[in-house]
Amino acid sequence: MDRFELNILGCGSALPTFKHNLSSQVINIRDKLYMIDCGEGTQLQFRIMRLNFNRLSHIFISHLHSDHCLGLPGLISTMGLLGRTAELHIHAMPDAEKIFKPLLEYFCKELPFKVFFHSFNPQKNELIFEDRTLSVYTIPLKHRVPTAGFLFEEKPKSAHIIREMTDFYQVPVSQMKAIKEGADFITPSGEIISNKRLTRPAEAPHKYAYCSDTAYSEKVIPIIENVDLLYHEATFCESDLARARETFHSSASQAADIALKARVKRLILGHFSARYPDESVLLKEAKKIFPETLLANEKMTIKI
Amino acid sequence: MDRFELNILGCGSALPTFKHNLSSQVINIRDKLYMIDCGEGTQLQFRIMRLNFNRLSHIFISHLHSDHCLGLPGLISTMGLLGRTAELHIHAMPDAEKIFKPLLEYFCKELPFKVFFHSFNPQKNELIFEDRTLSVYTIPLKHRVPTAGFLFEEKPKSAHIIREMTDFYQVPVSQMKAIKEGADFITPSGEIISNKRLTRPAEAPHKYAYCSDTAYSEKVIPIIENVDLLYHEATFCESDLARARETFHSSASQAADIALKARVKRLILGHFSARYPDESVLLKEAKKIFPETLLANEKMTIKI
Repeated sequence: MDRFELNILGCGSALPTFKHNLSSQVINIRDKLYMIDCGEGTQLQFRIMRLNFNRLSHIFISHLHSDHCLGLPGLISTMGLLGRTAELHIHAMPDAEKIFKPLLEYFCKELPFKVFFHSFNPQKNELIFEDRTLSVYTIPLKHRVPTAGFLFEEKPKSAHIIREMTDFYQVPVSQMKAIKEGADFITPSGEIISNKRLTRPAEAPHKYAYCSDTAYSEKVIPIIENVDLLYHEATFCESDLARARETFHSSASQAADIALKARVKRLILGHFSARYPDESVLLKEAKKIFPETLLANEKMTIKI
Repeated sequence: MDRFELNILGCGSALPTFKHNLSSQVINIRDKLYMIDCGEGTQLQFRIMRLNFNRLSHIFISHLHSDHCLGLPGLISTMGLLGRTAELHIHAMPDAEKIFKPLLEYFCKELPFKVFFHSFNPQKNELIFEDRTLSVYTIPLKHRVPTAGFLFEEKPKSAHIIREMTDFYQVPVSQMKAIKEGADFITPSGEIISNKRLTRPAEAPHKYAYCSDTAYSEKVIPIIENVDLLYHEATFCESDLARARETFHSSASQAADIALKARVKRLILGHFSARYPDESVLLKEAKKIFPETLLANEKMTIKI
């Protein structure tokens, strides 16, 4: 199976603690890296997890709160010192460029690579990035400032050739591509060999959804339906629901509710408030509603 | 003895490593804290060292390179979240306000305290701050951008009263302050009691000097002469002197040379390049010239 992994660099909220770093994740898809959020300290966590800066070209910022983006200037400065020449693309709210460009111009004057800001509308569910293997869509969230989650969706893969069958029917190499993409094969004598006999279907494309920071919002459900893994913030537990509402965050139960209603395969909780010395209280709460739940933690790598 | 301590929060250079954080120190003088430099990650190191944000009101920034100041916005944001109301003063180059103010205005909109920027001229050796116990002077350094070190100098303390003597001469309470400050005492019968018989001299005021980042510069010597402790950068060892010259940094030998010529009491080396897996090579080099040398390290507290 092709690699599709989630690396947790930080899953704390608001301020860094002895236990949790600020929000940042790196998706590894066939050894290309995609970063989501970049709180202060991310560059060090990136190195601690032995990820490779050269494989990272796209960073997606969910919203412009300090704990989700203040690691950007330091990360970019370090990439420059390490001699990076490849372009770096930052996908964020329109304000991001206004805020960070002057800082980069001051601190990274002699940057040996270009940084591009791409802005998106966090109120819309739309395709904001794609390459050969991946599409990234925004997920409108409900927070104190404009915020978007992200849906990472692998592109459909072509079917696997059953070598014994194509050998048997002497399928010429020139037709292999078409067969991979679903075509039948017509033998020189005119016999039609159904594509189903020549191929095994590809694995279903993998999907990962990141929903942080957000209050409980059922609007995300149709977008994240059936994903393999959902990262949903669970800043608070149910007994602190008033505080969750006030700050536009979610409780662990609410995260589990969303996971259940969206029929996702697995749920991973994160963005923990520093008030819980033991987060198993959040896990227990969520598992009652959605058993396939786990807690995020720094240095964790999860196969999707 | 009154407390005068140096806390090392970070002593690496350029980029954070598994071993060293970026530049930051906290001077503790009678439980008032003064920060020098604030690289990314400083707020977490501050908490790890169990220092108290409420005791910190002044931050001194040596120069506007990313590894010395990018921790400021996160630190300020966290202070806000923790409910600080006391003013915070940042002493730095004039550009600092231009660079950081827009960031603070964006990320710390509802900050419950005021942040003041005070600018100084790094080319001058002048008093930039004083309070009841302390004077801080700039030390012009020689780096790629305008840079100043800092001299922290305790104010002279008043002499100690010898209680037995003042009792013997029945010195009235109203005259004690004058005697502490050096006055003689005249008895009701007109006898002059010399101040020397009534007091023991105070301890000499303590002095700490911070010189980072800088190439070898003898101009600092008259300013830092006789300090109790000198922190001098030693980014490189002598065999990498060409690289040190090129980047306007110092070797460990050069740091020791300055310490020797300035007749300081102790030297502490820091701002280590990540290229040395074992910094004892730097220590050995410096100790040959100036034996009273030690290596900085994170979480270290040194009595001055």
